[in-house]
This record gives sequence, structure tokens and C-alpha cells, in this order.
Amino acid sequence: MVTPVAFADPPLLNAAGVHQPWALRAIIQVRTGSGLVGLGETYGDADHLALLRRAAPALRGLDVFDTNGLTARVAAVLRGADAPDAHGLTGPTSPQKSLARVVAPYEVALLDLAGQLTDRPVHALLGGKVRDAVPFAAYLFYKWDRHPGGEPDAWGAALDPDGIVAQARAMVDRYGFRSLKLKGGVFEPDAEIAAVRALRRAFPDLPTRLDPNAAWTPQTSTRVAAELAGELEYLEDPTPGRVGMAEVAAAASMPLATNMCVVAFDHLPEAVRLGSVGVVLGDHHYWGGLRASAQLAAICATFGLGLSMHSNSHLGISLAAMVHLAAATPTLSYACDTHIPWAEDDIVTAPLSIVDGAVPVPDAPGLGVRLDEAALDRLHRQYLACGIDRRDDEAYLRTVDPGFTRRVAAW
Amino acid sequence: MVTPVAFADPPLLNAAGVHQPWALRAIIQVRTGSGLVGLGETYGDADHLALLRRAAPALRGLDVFDTNGLTARVAAVLRGADAPDAHGLTGPTSPQKSLARVVAPYEVALLDLAGQLTDRPVHALLGGKVRDAVPFAAYLFYKWDRHPGGEPDAWGAALDPDGIVAQARAMVDRYGFRSLKLKGGVFEPDAEIAAVRALRRAFPDLPTRLDPNAAWTPQTSTRVAAELAGELEYLEDPTPGRVGMAEVAAAASMPLATNMCVVAFDHLPEAVRLGSVGVVLGDHHYWGGLRASAQLAAICATFGLGLSMHSNSHLGISLAAMVHLAAATPTLSYACDTHIPWAEDDIVTAPLSIVDGAVPVPDAPGLGVRLDEAALDRLHRQYLACGIDRRDDEAYLRTVDPGFTRRVAAW
Ligand SMILES: [Mg+2]
Ligand SMILES: [Mg+2]
Repeated sequence: MVTPVAFADPPLLNAAGVHQPWALRAIIQVRTGSGLVGLGETYGDADHLALLRRAAPALRGLDVFDTNGLTARVAAVLRGADAPDAHGLTGPTSPQKSLARVVAPYEVALLDLAGQLTDRPVHALLGGKVRDAVPFAAYLFYKWDRHPGGEPDAWGAALDPDGIVAQARAMVDRYGFRSLKLKGGVFEPDAEIAAVRALRRAFPDLPTRLDPNAAWTPQTSTRVAAELAGELEYLEDPTPGRVGMAEVAAAASMPLATNMCVVAFDHLPEAVRLGSVGVVLGDHHYWGGLRASAQLAAICATFGLGLSMHSNSHLGISLAAMVHLAAATPTLSYACDTHIPWAEDDIVTAPLSIVDGAVPVPDAPGLGVRLDEAALDRLHRQYLACGIDRRDDEAYLRTVDPGFTRRVAAW
Repeated sequence: MVTPVAFADPPLLNAAGVHQPWALRAIIQVRTGSGLVGLGETYGDADHLALLRRAAPALRGLDVFDTNGLTARVAAVLRGADAPDAHGLTGPTSPQKSLARVVAPYEVALLDLAGQLTDRPVHALLGGKVRDAVPFAAYLFYKWDRHPGGEPDAWGAALDPDGIVAQARAMVDRYGFRSLKLKGGVFEPDAEIAAVRALRRAFPDLPTRLDPNAAWTPQTSTRVAAELAGELEYLEDPTPGRVGMAEVAAAASMPLATNMCVVAFDHLPEAVRLGSVGVVLGDHHYWGGLRASAQLAAICATFGLGLSMHSNSHLGISLAAMVHLAAATPTLSYACDTHIPWAEDDIVTAPLSIVDGAVPVPDAPGLGVRLDEAALDRLHRQYLACGIDRRDDEAYLRTVDPGFTRRVAAW
């Protein structure tokens, strides 16, 4: 069963525009004959939903461990169908990318079932946990204090270094984060350099990252890297493409990270050959699931690439899947990203919690989270009522600034 | 429990010398509290046996799925210990290589148990079988008709093209193999070229490979590759080292394969960078087990490398492990190697059989093979009596030809 849901999302600014008032997700429930339910979570955009629904009947009769069979069956029903990646930051779409995005939440749901059936947490089935808590970074955003026409949110505005430091303070106080990530690409680079410096002054012990989502040219990227030498744990996607990234990487003193220029297995050979990046930010939602992500981890370890985890706006099923994957990934070398602090809502009964900047790894069978049926119903009604059926940060920002276009190597 | 065994092995010639009269293996039995037994099989050489025994207590209390925990525990007890690779063809040893060789049979035994506990074949736990039978190649050897001082064996001598063709005919007749592999590096290259040509004339429909185990210089390798253009499916390890292999690969019309210059994960970056090989011959016995081998498969698929499987002299537990792994490896691109036709004996009650050149994939729980206790006892007594405690093909050939040294880039 595929249920689209929507939850309130603050006006978070990025190079592509601004988050709409509602973030969309699709909740997957896979039921066994014996009445067990496995959970998955993925993007809720309309085109993706259509593919998810087309794939669902292919699961009938599949063994819960059979990832290869799942992939083959879904490929057979999708037959090369291709849905645009509404999140827009992972480059041109392709049938392979669409297949990976559709397989992923079903694979998570099957592993949730496999865990329940074998009385083991998902991390055990992925090879065994190597840590008892998974560290996450405070994900800081420039933001307005409210959506256009709406009420102010609890976080307030953050449009300058002081606002970002205040936001970081609130997040660190509440969650105990031990590293910081600033989403950039919103203001001109010197303003974002100033924000990073302000963060470093306020939190000198917390490793800090900056992610302008490819808003800069290679030249600007190289300049920013030089100005922030010694200040950044890594610089994330300063500029578009594996060639441009390689140019910046050759000059930068800190590693470059990416969730934009290496988003599928067939991007890795060129990235390795050119030296485009030092860190890959994996994401099981588009790499094809938890086992495929474990393969990505093995490749990164073999080729000397660091590994961490990317996040889009998500709820508690995705968080649980991310935590199980990270727990069983020996070579995870940085705190992971998560948007969870920005989501006021959830669809699981007892969401995993962030304690001292890390999520304690659940050892209950499967994913260790259970669907809150009432919340699912409420968030589905929000989906039906919200009037949004695909993410479009750019169009939403244009409602305020009609001349806006997403920034790609714009500075 | 670690039990060394020995089984009769014919005098198979290779670049390092000749197979001794007894081949050694170690049989691993891992017992659960509930009385289930998981099986593994690995090398039986004395130094390796010592490490296996040192590692055994580390398994106490480990979950059967916990490959990461197994690796960490074994690494902790081995503490960087390093046993020479008696098989000698995989380059200098290292603590990492020894760790991989010690972990592997225990991981297989744990997966055998995991399959029994979850009522699933091992291939299901590895992501699901993608084929119902695993193709193997006829593994042809130059050989004497008997061990020095012994009786003639049933295979007879094979010391020229006619002898090799006769051997191939016998193997193909008995097992239905659909591809051929000739172990070379024994006679001067033109003699082996002639043998390949004779095989091609006799079996024009069977893809054929030649493996001189790095007995040739790059120049000779390039010449042989040119002379055998169009005749070989791949040319295996013609010359030593990733640099020399790259030189040959650049000139050769057929892919080069290896189980010598890429035998651990840290060899892959240079091999990819230089283009040393087109095909990696994996081997779970030294790559660290079945899950590590699945990671190798993912790397090969990502970087455009073909994949097949290497074999040393082995028995039916190893064969079962190889078959489960191959069954669950979508990108296996060539028939696998096996020495099984050369082993007259076995230690499982109902060995998997080769039918039409392929082993039907077992779907029984775990590995699908059971230990034959009487055979184990008999082969263990053979081990105790045979007077060999480590493989040394070179020293054994010297008993006949005192001036012999193993051939490394010798032609
Ligand atoms: Mg990013
Ligand atoms: Mg070989």
C-alpha cells in the first residue's frame, strides 16, 4: 500500500528556491500473508507515486530477503519508465535512477519484515551494527520567519550570520548536535563565508560544513575554499559537475563532498578518475535501498572516499532506515544529515530521538518503529488538502520574487 | 571446531611446480547452543590452521548474521598476525590478507547457520538467486600420469596438445562443461599456444582460457595475445604485477583476467587506474567471505570489470559456498573455475553435482550440504598420515628436477 502524506515544512531557503509549506512523502506498507507489516518511506511527488503504485503488485509472493528479485521484478513492470526527480539536485533523470528510487522503499519494507520474521533489527541483517548511536549534524538553513501569508514559525528568521548562529544555538541546545551544516547558495558567497565564520566563533569545537548546492562557479568555489581554509570539515557541492568539482578539489585544502555530482553507481568511475570528490553523501532513497547503499560504502572504502549521508525532508520511517544503515556501515566517516528537527510531525508512534547529537540505534526487530495509523490518516488528509502534488522550490519562490531562477554556478 | 583434512590430488603441473600427492583443507564446524552446525572450508596449511584455531573462540556468542562483529572479533584476536599464503600466487602476504582468509570460512559457516535458522538457502540471504544453475569451466592441466613412485591415475598423462585435448574430451564427456580453461606456465609459450589451438579445433564452440600464472614477460604476453587473437575468451595472469598486466592489456585484443594481481580490495584502485585487467576472478576464501565477495562484485560492476571465480583444490563445502555466492551475483559474467573433477573424495554426504557443465543451485536451508562424519574422520587421518602440513608445489617438483624454480616472467 502506498499512501501519500504531507507535513508542514518551514520556509527553508536554498539555491533552488524555498521549501513549500508542505513537504510530501509516500509511506509504503508491505503486508505478509501472516499479517506482518513492513514499512518504507520515500518521496511523495506525483510522478514518483505513479511509479511506486505501478511497482506494488510486483511484490506479491516475493521472499523478504530477495533484493535481487525485487529489483528484477520492479524493472520488469517499470520497463524503463522514468519519473523526473522533483528534488532536482541530482542531475538529469534516467530509467536507472527511477528504478533505484522505486526499489528503495520497498527494499526497506522487506528488510523491516525480514527483521520481524527473524527477530532481528535491520542493522543485524545488514551485517551487524558497529556503533550504538549514529551521529547527525545540525542542518542549518537560511529561512524566512514565516511562509508568505502565514504565521511566524517557532524558529524565526535566519537571514544573516546572527540569525544562523541563533538557529544553531537553538538546535544544539535542543538536540546536542556535535557538528553543523549550513545550507548555502542563498546569499552571495561573502555573506555565507561570514556566516560560517560566525558559526566557527560561536561553536569553535563543532566541525562545520557548507553546502551551496552548486551555486558557484569553479573560480568562486576555489576562492571560498581558500578563504575558509581550516574552517570547514568539508565543502559540499560548491559547483556543478564532476569536472568542475575536480578543478575545485585540486585547489581546495578541505575535502569536497557531494550528493549532486555522484548520485548513481555509474558516476563513480569518472569521479574517481578525476578526483572530483573526497566524500560521497549516500542516500538510500535514491541509491536503490539499504543493501545498495552498503555496496556504495564498500566502493568508497576501497577507493579512499569518505562517506556520510544526505537527507531530504523526511519522517520517522526514513530516519529509522538511515540509522540502521549507518549503524551497520563500518566506514561512515562523518555525522549524517537529517531534516528531522524541521519536521513538527511524524507518522510513527515512537520516533527515534536525537540524544547528544546522535540517534541511539534501536535493537527491536525490523526497523523498530511502528506506524501511527491516526497520524498517517491525518497526514494523508493534509496531502489531499494541501494542493501540492510535487515539490517545486523554484516556483514557490517565484510567487514572492517573480524573477527568481534557481542558482547554478550563478556566483 | 577446525579439522585439517587431506585428500589425494593428481600431479597437476603449473608455473610454481606440481601438486603434491595430498591436498590440504581445513573443515570448520560452528555449533549453536541449539545444536545446529554451520560448515566452512578453507586452506589447510599449518600457519593458516594456527590462525583459524586462534580465531575460533572469538565466535562465542556472536549472532549468525553479524559479519561485522565477526571481522572485528577475529581482527582483535589475530592482532595483526600474518600467515604466509602457502598457495603463493597472490603476492606478498599482509595482516589484512590473513584476516580475510581467516574470517572467510567462519562467515560461510555463520551464513550456513543463518540459513538453517531462517529456513532459507544461503543465496537467499545474499540477496536472492538470479540463476538456477552456476556454470563452471573444465579446468585442464598439464600433468604426469602418476606421482613419482606411485601408480598411474585414471586421467593419464597430458604433456602435449593431444594429451590436453584428450583430457578435455574426458572432462566434457563426464561433466558437460561448456567452457575450457588450460593451466599454462608449464611449457614454453609456443607449446601452450599449440595446445590452445588444438583445443579450439577440437571444441570450436567452447570458449577457452589460458592461465600461465604470470610465467611470461610483458613482451611474451603481448606476443601470445596477438597469436591467440580471436581464440581466447580471456587471457589470465600472463605476466606479474598490475603495471605489467596493464602494458599487456593495452595491446591485447582479449580481456586479461586475474587472480594474482588483484587479490584484495586495496589493489583495485591501481588496477582500475592503470587498466590492468578486464576481469577479476574473485575467491571468497581470500576476499574475506561471501558478503565481501558480493562487495567485490558491486565494485566490478561499477567500474566496468568482468567477474568470474577462481578456485584452488577444494571439497564440497567450498563448492556449495561458491555456488550460493555465484547464484546471488547478478553480474557474474563468465563460467567459474573449480578443481572438483580432480578431487576423488569429498567430506559432504551428497556433493553438489555438475550437470551439463553447471551446478544446479540448491534451495535447501543453509549451504544445503551436510558433513559426512565418516569421511571427515578418514580424511583427517589421511592428513595426519600424509606427512604434508603445507602446500609446496615448488619443493615437490624439485624432488624430481632439483634445478627447478617457480617461473615468474621466466619466458
Ligand atoms: Mg547537499
Ligand atoms: Mg589463475
